Amino acid sequence: MLEVIDHALSADGPAGAGAIRELRLARPPVNALNAELLARIADAVSGAATEAGVLITGQPGLFSAGLDVRGMLELDRPGIENLFEQLWRATRAIACSSVPVVFGLTGHSPAGGTVLAINGDYRVMALGDFRLGLNEVQVGLIPGPPICHVFQRLVGGHAGQLLTRGALVDPAAALRVGLVDELCDVSQVVPRALTMAREIAALPRGPMLQTRTMMRQPLVDLYGPAASASRQREFTVMGADMWFAPEAQSRLRALFTKR
Amino acid sequence: MLEVIDHALSADGPAGAGAIRELRLARPPVNALNAELLARIADAVSGAATEAGVLITGQPGLFSAGLDVRGMLELDRPGIENLFEQLWRATRAIACSSVPVVFGLTGHSPAGGTVLAINGDYRVMALGDFRLGLNEVQVGLIPGPPICHVFQRLVGGHAGQLLTRGALVDPAAALRVGLVDELCDVSQVVPRALTMAREIAALPRGPMLQTRTMMRQPLVDLYGPAASASRQREFTVMGADMWFAPEAQSRLRALFTKR
Amino acid sequence: MLEVIDHALSADGPAGAGAIRELRLARPPVNALNAELLARIADAVSGAATEAGVLITGQPGLFSAGLDVRGMLELDRPGIENLFEQLWRATRAIACSSVPVVFGLTGHSPAGGTVLAINGDYRVMALGDFRLGLNEVQVGLIPGPPICHVFQRLVGGHAGQLLTRGALVDPAAALRVGLVDELCDVSQVVPRALTMAREIAALPRGPMLQTRTMMRQPLVDLYGPAASASRQREFTVMGADMWFAPEAQSRLRALFTKR
Repeated sequence: MLEVIDHALSADGPAGAGAIRELRLARPPVNALNAELLARIADAVSGAATEAGVLITGQPGLFSAGLDVRGMLELDRPGIENLFEQLWRATRAIACSSVPVVFGLTGHSPAGGTVLAINGDYRVMALGDFRLGLNEVQVGLIPGPPICHVFQRLVGGHAGQLLTRGALVDPAAALRVGLVDELCDVSQVVPRALTMAREIAALPRGPMLQTRTMMRQPLVDLYGPAASASRQREFTVMGADMWFAPEAQSRLRALFTKR
Repeated sequence: MLEVIDHALSADGPAGAGAIRELRLARPPVNALNAELLARIADAVSGAATEAGVLITGQPGLFSAGLDVRGMLELDRPGIENLFEQLWRATRAIACSSVPVVFGLTGHSPAGGTVLAINGDYRVMALGDFRLGLNEVQVGLIPGPPICHVFQRLVGGHAGQLLTRGALVDPAAALRVGLVDELCDVSQVVPRALTMAREIAALPRGPMLQTRTMMRQPLVDLYGPAASASRQREFTVMGADMWFAPEAQSRLRALFTKR
Repeated sequence: MLEVIDHALSADGPAGAGAIRELRLARPPVNALNAELLARIADAVSGAATEAGVLITGQPGLFSAGLDVRGMLELDRPGIENLFEQLWRATRAIACSSVPVVFGLTGHSPAGGTVLAINGDYRVMALGDFRLGLNEVQVGLIPGPPICHVFQRLVGGHAGQLLTRGALVDPAAALRVGLVDELCDVSQVVPRALTMAREIAALPRGPMLQTRTMMRQPLVDLYGPAASASRQREFTVMGADMWFAPEAQSRLRALFTKR
């Protein structure tokens, strides 16, 4: 479900005080995000706090299809609330990670896949006929205020039209609007993301982390103080309310009965 | 002066609960914006509140040359104040429209043309030797604070140099800085903008409008509460003061006696 | 050390009420910024307040290698504090200049070179194998909060990853993220920057300066009121503390003993 692979800090050297910990989504067929996978991501990112850095990747051609909508349609309200709680925990763990998190977006990465990635430090995206973006509106859902703020932080003035349209964009447009930081051939995404994570890890540690903390403070603040559960609860309730809205339910169910 | 054309929601189907209402500027020779045209735009956009969406377009090669400077030179202070009042009403109607407003920028769109467009939801721009931007400074005028804020909301860090220079940019630069969202051949601008308006209209209505409202709130707030006339009055007085400043008058009059 | 060249406002005409004052960095071999050069820049920019505009340039292939690290390693704490004081004075003079400041980035412009440039009005960058950016982190230093804010003002959502990585970028990436405004052949950088400074100077003076003041107010505010020395003092102490941190000292000294 989530493969954990530790890479030495330099390509040929031994691992030192910490490693680059790769978390590779592995939930066939489409790396759909269910509560268990999200919980594992949250725990794995938090658990890497003393490593040199974190890398989050998928399989060639696919990063993640987003939330596991088919599975979610089987869940009752407590189950859905739990899923949104785990989504909050995963995005919070990435946003508030004490070490840099680099995403290797190995292919398609709509909705939930993009939600995870925009909380990271750096995004390498695969060239090709792949799409990413927050397309919640297209399936009758709403990207909540915290997600919209994180998105807008990256893409600035492009956020309004992209979110209103529930737009999925191709890699070139994603680079243009600032949604990803670099494009490369699909076969090179993981190596490039690993190289980037290693380059960041090789920087003078104190100055890098201090600069990073300063620049990410507004993002961290969106998630509220660690001790407080109120924003998590708010997000969970908002997610479940949205999910069970009659219009959303009929649209989501139609997605799967159509096929 | 302003052609109103209702398009069915799907290219081949009948109009349902609402249409895509196209407002086509048609004031030869250059679609110069006078008080009457601006008032018609304001009324037409407000009047489309129950339609599916609004499209604002011009003629191939020309969207609008901006404010009707030649005509304005004939006006006394009440006339000029009325013109700026209608400009405020038109931009406010677009910014605060309850349905999405897509611009089909069919060609040149300096000054007033750009002022209208930056308040919309999405901008399709014609490829070719066309220019757009806020070039007020070039003719001795000043884009007021509300207009500057709306502009900066789209183009971020590029706003300072562009406004200081009164820069007109070509379509490629406009896309690069975020002033427009898409480029296409001049013959395809209206069809593309119509397709985009239809795509947005075909989205789940509630979630689309809720997301749109959330993302546009800071823009709407710039125009102040609907009941209040104070910002409109402030804008009107500022515009007229600027217009009748001696330096501006001599420059503006020189523009036309030169020719 | 700093060549001062006055250019007439039009290419063929005589200088009128003011000139475009070019300040050409000329401290071989790499235009390293020491306290004296920074003080001269500060004084020269402030002293050009009644000219038409300011142009800051370097030599073909090189704008500035940044702070004179080799020379700084010879300085005691008062000397280092003086250097950071002059850096503050130079950036403040550029940011708060009463006339537009155009940069002709004639080549490499890392760290201190970029720090100066981001405070200006417009940046023309040389095409070629040149780099610019705030790479402080790479040598164990930290770009302080004021510098980070000025940088983020230009590049928006790109700021976090660029500063965390201490990234140096090539000219194409610099244009893409908004760090520079225009690229041209290295031989054309000074002529193009001069043309731009002349174009801005030829605009209606009052409206141009009013628009410029409005757009640059948040930047000017970062430097605090002119009468107050507290932010300058804070910057100076922060700079010296950072410089004399043991980790920074060992890294900086290693840079030069290695060679």
